[in-house]
Amino acid sequence: MGLYRWLHNQLVPEARESGISLTNWFIISLVLASFLFLALETEPTLLAVPEWRVAFRWFNVTVVIIFAIEYVLRVAIAGMRPEYAGFVGRLRYITRFYSIADLLAFLPELIVMVIGGGIPLIALRVFRLFRLIKIARFVPAFDVLGAAMKRAGSQLLTTLAMAMALVYVAAVLLYFIEGVGQGRPEFNSIPRAIWWSIATLTTVGYGDVYPVTTLGRIAASVIAIAGIGVVALPAGVFASAFSDELRERQLQKLQDRVEEAEAKKGAAPEESGA
Amino acid sequence: MGLYRWLHNQLVPEARESGISLTNWFIISLVLASFLFLALETEPTLLAVPEWRVAFRWFNVTVVIIFAIEYVLRVAIAGMRPEYAGFVGRLRYITRFYSIADLLAFLPELIVMVIGGGIPLIALRVFRLFRLIKIARFVPAFDVLGAAMKRAGSQLLTTLAMAMALVYVAAVLLYFIEGVGQGRPEFNSIPRAIWWSIATLTTVGYGDVYPVTTLGRIAASVIAIAGIGVVALPAGVFASAFSDELRERQLQKLQDRVEEAEAKKGAAPEESGA
Amino acid sequence: MGLYRWLHNQLVPEARESGISLTNWFIISLVLASFLFLALETEPTLLAVPEWRVAFRWFNVTVVIIFAIEYVLRVAIAGMRPEYAGFVGRLRYITRFYSIADLLAFLPELIVMVIGGGIPLIALRVFRLFRLIKIARFVPAFDVLGAAMKRAGSQLLTTLAMAMALVYVAAVLLYFIEGVGQGRPEFNSIPRAIWWSIATLTTVGYGDVYPVTTLGRIAASVIAIAGIGVVALPAGVFASAFSDELRERQLQKLQDRVEEAEAKKGAAPEESGA
Amino acid sequence: MGLYRWLHNQLVPEARESGISLTNWFIISLVLASFLFLALETEPTLLAVPEWRVAFRWFNVTVVIIFAIEYVLRVAIAGMRPEYAGFVGRLRYITRFYSIADLLAFLPELIVMVIGGGIPLIALRVFRLFRLIKIARFVPAFDVLGAAMKRAGSQLLTTLAMAMALVYVAAVLLYFIEGVGQGRPEFNSIPRAIWWSIATLTTVGYGDVYPVTTLGRIAASVIAIAGIGVVALPAGVFASAFSDELRERQLQKLQDRVEEAEAKKGAAPEESGA
Repeated sequence: MGLYRWLHNQLVPEARESGISLTNWFIISLVLASFLFLALETEPTLLAVPEWRVAFRWFNVTVVIIFAIEYVLRVAIAGMRPEYAGFVGRLRYITRFYSIADLLAFLPELIVMVIGGGIPLIALRVFRLFRLIKIARFVPAFDVLGAAMKRAGSQLLTTLAMAMALVYVAAVLLYFIEGVGQGRPEFNSIPRAIWWSIATLTTVGYGDVYPVTTLGRIAASVIAIAGIGVVALPAGVFASAFSDELRERQLQKLQDRVEEAEAKKGAAPEESGA
Repeated sequence: MGLYRWLHNQLVPEARESGISLTNWFIISLVLASFLFLALETEPTLLAVPEWRVAFRWFNVTVVIIFAIEYVLRVAIAGMRPEYAGFVGRLRYITRFYSIADLLAFLPELIVMVIGGGIPLIALRVFRLFRLIKIARFVPAFDVLGAAMKRAGSQLLTTLAMAMALVYVAAVLLYFIEGVGQGRPEFNSIPRAIWWSIATLTTVGYGDVYPVTTLGRIAASVIAIAGIGVVALPAGVFASAFSDELRERQLQKLQDRVEEAEAKKGAAPEESGA
Repeated sequence: MGLYRWLHNQLVPEARESGISLTNWFIISLVLASFLFLALETEPTLLAVPEWRVAFRWFNVTVVIIFAIEYVLRVAIAGMRPEYAGFVGRLRYITRFYSIADLLAFLPELIVMVIGGGIPLIALRVFRLFRLIKIARFVPAFDVLGAAMKRAGSQLLTTLAMAMALVYVAAVLLYFIEGVGQGRPEFNSIPRAIWWSIATLTTVGYGDVYPVTTLGRIAASVIAIAGIGVVALPAGVFASAFSDELRERQLQKLQDRVEEAEAKKGAAPEESGA
Repeated sequence: MGLYRWLHNQLVPEARESGISLTNWFIISLVLASFLFLALETEPTLLAVPEWRVAFRWFNVTVVIIFAIEYVLRVAIAGMRPEYAGFVGRLRYITRFYSIADLLAFLPELIVMVIGGGIPLIALRVFRLFRLIKIARFVPAFDVLGAAMKRAGSQLLTTLAMAMALVYVAAVLLYFIEGVGQGRPEFNSIPRAIWWSIATLTTVGYGDVYPVTTLGRIAASVIAIAGIGVVALPAGVFASAFSDELRERQLQKLQDRVEEAEAKKGAAPEESGA
C-alpha cells in the first residue's frame, strides 16, 4: 500500500499542495520530446538517413510503452480517490475526458505496432496531438482559456460576427471590382476573394493575391485602413478578458492564503483580544 | 386574431423580453445560408457541375419566395403596434430603413425571375448584401458600432487625419526617392506610391511594391518604425471606445434590472420600514 | 476698417470662440484639393491626356495666386493683434514658423511661373508639402502630437532604443547565418540584413528577403516571436501617451467651461447665500 | 589623487547624482559609431573602394585602443569604491558581468591585431556585440526589461506555451492537408509547416509559403483569425508588465525625492509646529 500511496503522490497532480512531481516532469518532457520527434520524423532529409529512421522507430516504441504503463498505473491508483473507487468509479474514471485522451495518446499506435501491416502509420501520427492534453493538465492556464472565453462571451461573439461580416463584404466588393470587372483569376469567385480579404485584414499579406486595378486598389486601401481595426477587435477583447481572468484568479489565490493564515493565527489571539 | 398575435410574437424582436423566436432563428439561418450560397455560386469549378447549378437556382427561388412572404407578413402585422397602425402608419413602416432593406433583399431578384431576360443576374447579387441588415436587427452590437464612433468622435477624426497625412507624406517621399530618382515603375506616380505606403503602414506588405535603393530603404525603414504606431492609432481609439460603450451598456442593463427588482420589492417593505 | 475687422475674423482662427470660418474652410479645401491634384499630376496615364495637362496647369496657377493673396492679406491684418503691430511686429509675424510655411507654400512656384525656364518644376512640388502646415493650424491634435511625445519622453526613448538594438542584433545574427554562412546575396551585408530585420519585426514582411536555411529559419522564428512585442512597444507607449494627453485636455476644457458658467452664476446668488 | 577622483567622477555612472558625464557620452557615441561602421564594413559595394577599406581599418584600430585604455582606467579606479578595494576587490571587479563584457568588447580584436594572421577577422566581429552591454549600463530600462519579465512571470510563460502549442497544431494541420494530402514541397514536413505557421500567426507573411488547396485555405483562414490573437498575447502581457514596472519606478523615484525634501524641511518646522 506504500507503493500505491507513493504512486498516487507522484502521478496525481492534485495530491500535492504545489509544484509538479518528478514523475510528472518526466512525462511532460517525454511529451515535448515526442512532439519534437514527430516533427523531425516527417523531414525527408532526415528520413533518408538510416540511423535516424532507427532512432525514430525506437523512440516511438519506447514512448508508447511508457505511456501504456502510465495509463495502467493511473487506472490502478484511481481507486484511492473516493470518487473513482469501486467498479463504477473506475468506469467513471476511464470515461472522463483526460483519461480518454491518455488512451488515444498511445493505443492506436500500440495496436498497429502489435498487429502491424495494413493501416498507414502516417495517419496515426495525428493521434499524438492528444498528448497535448496530457500536458494541459499541468498548465492551469488552459483552464483559464475557457473561462476567459466565457467571460468575453457576447462581446467576443459580437466582434467576431462583425469581423466576419466585414471580411465577407470586402470580398464581395473586390470580387465585383477585380473579378467580374477585370476578369482576374485570383478574384473570379467570392471564396477566392475571401482568401484575399482574410490575408489583408489580418495583415498577413502573403502577396499571392492583391488588387491591380486603380479602383480595386482604392477599395482595398479604404478597406484596409477601416477594417484592420475591426478584425483586430475580437483578439483585443479576448486578450483583455484573459488578462482580467488571470489577475482575478491570482488575487483569489492570494486572498485564500491570507485567510488561511489568519484562520490559523485567529484561534489564539481572539481570547487575548476579548 | 390569435394568428396575428402569434405572428407578431414570432416576427417582431421587441415583442419578446429576451431571446430570439424560432421563426427569426430560421430567417437568420436562411440569410447565412444565402451568403454561403452566394459565395459558392460564383465559384467556376462548381458552376461547371449541372447539379450545383440546379441547386443554386432552386435555393435562390425558395429564398426569394420566403423573404417575400416574410415581408408581406411583417407589413400585415405592423398595424398591431400603435405607431404603425392605420394607412399612414403602414406608410411610415414601409419607408423606414429596415423595411426598405427587407424589400431590396428580395424584390430585384423576384422581378427578374418573373419578367426574366435582359438584366444580367450577376449584378443583382449585390442586392443580397442588404440581407446583412436583416440580421443586424438581432445583433445589438451593430447599434453599439455607431455609438462607439460618435463617442470616439473628434479623437477618431484627428487620428485618422494624422494617419492620412503620414500615408501621403510617406508616399511623396518614396515617389521622389524611388520614382523620380530611380525611374522605378512601381513608384512613378504619387497614387502608386500611396498604394505602397498603405500596404507598408498597415503592415499588410503584399510584396508587390517595395523600395530597392539604399536611400529608399532607409526612408522606408524610418517611416515603418515611426509610422506604424500612428496608423494604428485610429483602430486603437475605436477599439477602446467600442469596449467602453459596450461595458457601459451592460452596466446600464444590469442597473435597470436591479432597480426593477427593487421597485417590485419596495412597495410592501416600505410600510413595515416606516 | 470694417473690412479689416471682417478679414481678421475670417482669417485668424483665434478670433473666433469656436468653429472655423468660411474663408478658412475654403483654404482647407483648397489645400486638400491641391494634394489630390499633386498626386494626380504625377500619374503618367493622366499626363498623356492634353485636357488633364491643361487642367493641372490652370489649377496650379489659381492655387498659387490665391495663396499669394491670402499671404498678403494675413500680413496686412497681422497688425490688428497687438503682438504683431508696427514694423517690428510685422517682422516678428513674418518670421514665425507658420508664416514661413505659408510663404514656402506658394513662393517657389510663383517665382518659376513668373521667371519661367531653367529649374525643373518637379522638384518644386515637394514645397507643396508645406501646405500641410497650413491645415495643421486648424487641427488642435497636431499640437497634442508634440505634447504626447514629451509626455511619453524617456519611456518612448527607452523602448525605441531597445527596438533599435533588437533590430540590429537580429540583423547581425542573420547576416552571419545566411550571409557569411550561406553566401546568400540578400544577407551579404549587415545593412541588407537590417532591411530584412525591419521588414520582419514590424511584421510588414514584403517577402523580398527571407531566410532559407534551417538554422536561419529557426533564428528568424525565435526573433519574430520574441521581438515583435519589443518593436511594437514604442508605438504602444506613444499611443497611450497620446490618448492620455487628449483625454486630459478634453477634461480641462470641460472644467474651464464649468468654472466659467459658475463664475457667471456666482455673482448674484452669493448675496442671497450670505 | 585629484586625477583619480576626476576619472572616477567621469567614468563611474553611479558617481553622479544624475545625467551622464562627457567622457561617458563620448564612449556611448563611440559604441554607436562602431555599430554603424560594423554595418558599413560588411557592405561589398563599400569594400570595393580602397579609401573606405583604409577608413574602416583606422577606425577599428582607434576604437580598440580607446576601449583598451578605458578598460585599464576603469580597473585602476575601481579601488576607489570600497567593495572593489584591494586585490580581492579588483578580482571581484574584473569578474563581474559588465567588466567581462568590457574586456570582450576589445580584447579578441586587439590580440588578432597584435599577433595577426590565422584567424579570420570576420568571425571576431561578433564580439563587437558585447559593446551593446557597454551602453546598456547607461540605459536604466535594460534593467527594467528583466524586472518586467519577472513581473509578467507565470503569465508570460503560460501565454508563450499556448502560442507555441497553437503554432505547432496549426503546422501539423497544414502538413496533413497540404503536405501529405497534396504533396506540396513547402509543406512536406512538420518543421517546414512550422515555418509557414510562424510567418502567418505573427502576421509577417513573407509569401514564400502559403496554402493553395481549398481545404488548406479554409484551415489557414480559421487558424489566422482565431490564432493571431493568441500568438499576440505574450507580447501584450510583456508590454503591460513593462509599462507597469516603469511607471512604478518613476513613482518610487518621485516619492523618494518628496520624502527627501520633507526630511530636509522637517527638522526645523517640527519645533515651530509643537
